[in-house]
Amino acid sequence: MNQNNHVQYDDNNIFAKMLKGEIPYHKVFEDDKTLAFMDIMPQAKGHVLVIPKQKAIELADLEPEYAAAVLMTAKKVMQAQRQVFEREGIIQMQLNGSQAGQTVFHYHVHLIPSSIHELGRHAVTQADQGELADLAQQLAAVIAG
Amino acid sequence: MNQNNHVQYDDNNIFAKMLKGEIPYHKVFEDDKTLAFMDIMPQAKGHVLVIPKQKAIELADLEPEYAAAVLMTAKKVMQAQRQVFEREGIIQMQLNGSQAGQTVFHYHVHLIPSSIHELGRHAVTQADQGELADLAQQLAAVIAG
Repeated sequence: MNQNNHVQYDDNNIFAKMLKGEIPYHKVFEDDKTLAFMDIMPQAKGHVLVIPKQKAIELADLEPEYAAAVLMTAKKVMQAQRQVFEREGIIQMQLNGSQAGQTVFHYHVHLIPSSIHELGRHAVTQADQGELADLAQQLAAVIAG
Repeated sequence: MNQNNHVQYDDNNIFAKMLKGEIPYHKVFEDDKTLAFMDIMPQAKGHVLVIPKQKAIELADLEPEYAAAVLMTAKKVMQAQRQVFEREGIIQMQLNGSQAGQTVFHYHVHLIPSSIHELGRHAVTQADQGELADLAQQLAAVIAG
C-alpha cells in the first residue's frame, strides 16, 4: 500500500496485465523478481523499463529485496544498451506520483539512452512495434551472452 | 571498477571527500551503507542526493546490498520531502556516464521535488547555503520522527 496518499494498487494497470500475461510486450529480460521490456513511447531510441514483480505503486511501496533486484536488472539492461547502441550515457529515472509525471501506477525504472540535457518529454509518441521487437531481441541477446 | 569504460574510481571526487569528512555538506540522513544530503545546485527546491558508502562510479559498479540500501534511504528521504514541501511528485533520477550528464563520478541518486515536464537543467545555479542548511534540518527532523 502506498504510505503517502493511500491509493490502492490497481490489479488492472497495464504493467500488472503484462505480468499476468494478458497483454503482449517486447521482453528484454526476466527473472524471478523483475521484468524488463521496451517502452512503447520511448523518450529516446532503446528506452527500456524495469519493473518489480511486486504490487508496488511507487518507491514508497518498494520492498528492499525488490529494490536490489530492480537495480541489478537495470545494471544488466544498461550494459546491453551500451553495447547495442554504442553509447555510454544512460539515464536512470523513476517518477513518483502523477504530479511528477507518473502515468502507470506500478513502480517502473526508466533506462534511457540519452542525456539530461536532451531528455524528451515523457510518453508523447508511440514507437513502431516492429522496431521495438527488433531492439528487444538485440538487447536480450546481449544479456543472455 | 567500472565494467564498461574501465575508468578508475577517483578517491578525491567531491562525494568521496564528503564521506571522508574532508568537506562540509548539509546532511539529511546517514546509515551504515548510505548518506543523503542537499544538492548544492538544486534542479528544484528540496533536491536531495543519496549515495552509497561504496566506491561505485555508477550503476555498473553498484553491489546488490548497496542498491537496496540506496533505494530504502531514498524512500525515507522522499517521504520526508513530501511532508516538508507538501507535494506528492518526486523524481528519482541517476545519470550514468558523462554523456548522460553525470558530473561527479560516485554513484548518486537524485530525489527532485519536480515533474518530468518541469525538470530544469542539471547543475546550473548554486543555492544559498543557509537555505540548504535549513531544508536539511527540516528533512532530517521528519526522518528522525
